[in-house]
Amino acid sequence: MRAPAVVLLSGGLDSATVAAIARRDGFDVHALSFRYGQRHAVELDAAAKVAADQGIADHRIVDIDLRAFGGSALTDDTIAVPKNRPIAAETVIPVTYVPARNTIFLSFGLAFAEVLGARDLFVGVNALDYSGYPDCRPEYLAAFEAMAQLATKAGVEGNGVRLHAPLLSLTKADIIRTGTDLGIDYAATVSCYDPDPAGRACGACDACQLRRKGFADAGIADPTRYA
Amino acid sequence: MRAPAVVLLSGGLDSATVAAIARRDGFDVHALSFRYGQRHAVELDAAAKVAADQGIADHRIVDIDLRAFGGSALTDDTIAVPKNRPIAAETVIPVTYVPARNTIFLSFGLAFAEVLGARDLFVGVNALDYSGYPDCRPEYLAAFEAMAQLATKAGVEGNGVRLHAPLLSLTKADIIRTGTDLGIDYAATVSCYDPDPAGRACGACDACQLRRKGFADAGIADPTRYA
Repeated sequence: MRAPAVVLLSGGLDSATVAAIARRDGFDVHALSFRYGQRHAVELDAAAKVAADQGIADHRIVDIDLRAFGGSALTDDTIAVPKNRPIAAETVIPVTYVPARNTIFLSFGLAFAEVLGARDLFVGVNALDYSGYPDCRPEYLAAFEAMAQLATKAGVEGNGVRLHAPLLSLTKADIIRTGTDLGIDYAATVSCYDPDPAGRACGACDACQLRRKGFADAGIADPTRYA
Repeated sequence: MRAPAVVLLSGGLDSATVAAIARRDGFDVHALSFRYGQRHAVELDAAAKVAADQGIADHRIVDIDLRAFGGSALTDDTIAVPKNRPIAAETVIPVTYVPARNTIFLSFGLAFAEVLGARDLFVGVNALDYSGYPDCRPEYLAAFEAMAQLATKAGVEGNGVRLHAPLLSLTKADIIRTGTDLGIDYAATVSCYDPDPAGRACGACDACQLRRKGFADAGIADPTRYA
């Protein structure tokens, strides 16, 4: 019998790959997505499609309103998503950073894991091609895991949650190669921060640039629908 | 000018006291409450009253649906709230424990603090008369603070959030004495896990027992409306 695991599934390329990795590694995947006021809520349709493609029967979408706080281009329509900027030389944290978003998402993942009796929580963060977000760094993830060990009933009983970030040290090209080998249809995924209403990618935001370069570097045809 | 601080405000006795302490200590209090599917949602009316009593202009209520996971007597109507049980000799974590609740609440508090530019986050957890919840222990709070330092843009820039739990080592009687000295009208607060529709306390759940004993030990008249 497969052990249950929670996978945070955004509908993007990275988390689709993580779900496939968790399945490959023998876990019964329970997927968790968030409707958090993101301007690219079309990614939730992508998440549902990814879950269906991978045969994930338990996919929950939790509503949380991060627009109550704003503070990010992704949750505040008055802040524009940067386009066509150089992403190689990252020096400041971009305005697409959503305050404490990964901490909030992982906290819900921790709650879901505890209720399921799951000891494993997967997240698709990546420290290499990652846009410079503080909550994608290895030291942050280690600190979250240490906190999680103390946070729950399961943790007190010695069954704390293990946090898995299998993409942490991979390039976008590595991720795409891994997922392609696992049979992922990346056409179903949406990475763009600012897609059009039909879900077509802008091709110019940081996420689009990283994704496009990833397919090029991997030598794999890019199936993304661009506007 | 007062520095901004976020205070998690449940509408109970403890968090009302914490808000008053934060004000006493010179902070401009921004209060944060959660409509999380709790069976005692009447506490949110109490939170609004407490905020108004204390002149807190910014009180936000965030909707999050912990019933999507359940797993607690507070978020699942099929699990009964224990009544009239001895609370002195705590050996197991009670069914009123909500999986990862404090982690989720503190994560939202962290997001709110970052957006406000606040460096201080107050929470009313208490390790003494605390019902045995894992996420009320000092070691848990220390681990959350360590994680929070790494989680945010502010943290990366050296302005991480300080987590304050001023009630951590106080007895319920100490808390009541402190708040009474600060002018809190505890009649506005609701501690009961299972109040009637009019907001009157059951008098028999763990929270009611701890509260009643606190007033008795403090030698202060208990203003609670019991059913």
